[in-house]
Amino acid sequence: MERIRLDIEYDGTNYCGWQRQKEELAIQQVIEEAIDKTQGGNCTVEGSGRTDAGVHALNQVAHFDSTCTIPPESWRFVLNNILPPDVRILKSAKVQNDWHARFWVKDKTYKYVFHNSRVNTAIKRNYSFFVPYRLDEDKMKRALEDLIGEHDFDAFMSRKSQKENTVRTIYSARLERARDELYLYVTGSGFLHNMVRTIAGTLVDIGRGHLSEDTFKKAIENKDRIILGITADAGGLFLHHVNYFNSMEEKQRARGEI
Amino acid sequence: MERIRLDIEYDGTNYCGWQRQKEELAIQQVIEEAIDKTQGGNCTVEGSGRTDAGVHALNQVAHFDSTCTIPPESWRFVLNNILPPDVRILKSAKVQNDWHARFWVKDKTYKYVFHNSRVNTAIKRNYSFFVPYRLDEDKMKRALEDLIGEHDFDAFMSRKSQKENTVRTIYSARLERARDELYLYVTGSGFLHNMVRTIAGTLVDIGRGHLSEDTFKKAIENKDRIILGITADAGGLFLHHVNYFNSMEEKQRARGEI
Repeated sequence: MERIRLDIEYDGTNYCGWQRQKEELAIQQVIEEAIDKTQGGNCTVEGSGRTDAGVHALNQVAHFDSTCTIPPESWRFVLNNILPPDVRILKSAKVQNDWHARFWVKDKTYKYVFHNSRVNTAIKRNYSFFVPYRLDEDKMKRALEDLIGEHDFDAFMSRKSQKENTVRTIYSARLERARDELYLYVTGSGFLHNMVRTIAGTLVDIGRGHLSEDTFKKAIENKDRIILGITADAGGLFLHHVNYFNSMEEKQRARGEI
Repeated sequence: MERIRLDIEYDGTNYCGWQRQKEELAIQQVIEEAIDKTQGGNCTVEGSGRTDAGVHALNQVAHFDSTCTIPPESWRFVLNNILPPDVRILKSAKVQNDWHARFWVKDKTYKYVFHNSRVNTAIKRNYSFFVPYRLDEDKMKRALEDLIGEHDFDAFMSRKSQKENTVRTIYSARLERARDELYLYVTGSGFLHNMVRTIAGTLVDIGRGHLSEDTFKKAIENKDRIILGITADAGGLFLHHVNYFNSMEEKQRARGEI
């Protein structure tokens, strides 16, 4: 048995998300089926975390246990020949047997794409959120500063979710413009369900003057979802990359657990 | 009657091209139907030129004759409410009654997108051409210089096409890199069928060393299609923008016809 790490790009448009579902097709499922076709059996592919229906990944990370003699770096070619063109394995590599795509996560970065123009885009319609308003970017940047640090992000979580620990650390949150596109990059220790999309939706309302600059601060203090803006479209969200600790011990030490 | 100019962005993935066809859905057809739904009748939308199945437009230009009282700049809103999300009217404006989206063209710019990486992209798979080779960009840039000027581009035309005059003027042809994407921009007085895609396919073969640097030059001199490379994928091609003369007289003067 060899544990294999997969680095994956996917277009989430036609999937119900990362996580396997009963009725609809998930990205996890198509990858598991491609592996099963290759080595037989019934494998489980563990991702770094879920992404919702319509959300994309520039670099999701996952692992599975190879039970056959395919060289680790060749899994990429084998799987890409079976997978649909909207799911691509960027890299496959052997990792140690206790490495874990979810447990060993150090931090994750999400990218959110706003299309800031008078008319929505035909070509990037599934890969951006249409914002036809004039935005005060300085104000948006100042608002983002309130997210940095360790906070209870309970207010930013989907009400469907039932996570008990809602404390997360945000390391950076920055805004970049490229012509009529605005990119939000958020890096954190982890994210609650819908957290980045709630930040993105609220940020637009701050930028257009419908919400005040201290909205994030107030929502963190009051743990009140109602203060915040809408949950922005799934299509604008990309899992950008995932960083890992070198060992579980390093993680526990960094988190003050040992 | 008022003549209306439309500036249009479209995702060509799900269409048989710009031009109305009997069996398949064309972009021209969906726009004509949206106008007919609004003002009745049976309008014709004239584009600046055709684009093939799967080819996109960042800014195609067309015109039609409005027979109702909708203000010119409001046509944009009216049509965008009817059109599918992969066709967007960026702008609508009144032009003089003899203005013509095809006849008055001064020059056109096409953009061709190469995805130059070891693995194809999931997200941009319909919007780029996968090139997994190491490319000599300096060589490609030098080769492009041979296209500049007035030449008989007969060798670059699809054999299906039966244009009699195959002389065109190329004003500029440049290559730009952005991480793992390469962009080719070509501006010319007009283009033959498949001309930009033939340039793009040949350029890749020059860049990877399969064809020599003077391939474009030789193909122009010998009018020989066989010298050139493949016709690169439609999905990588974008009609980027169209420039117009201010009058037919200006055009005829520029072309030495009067």
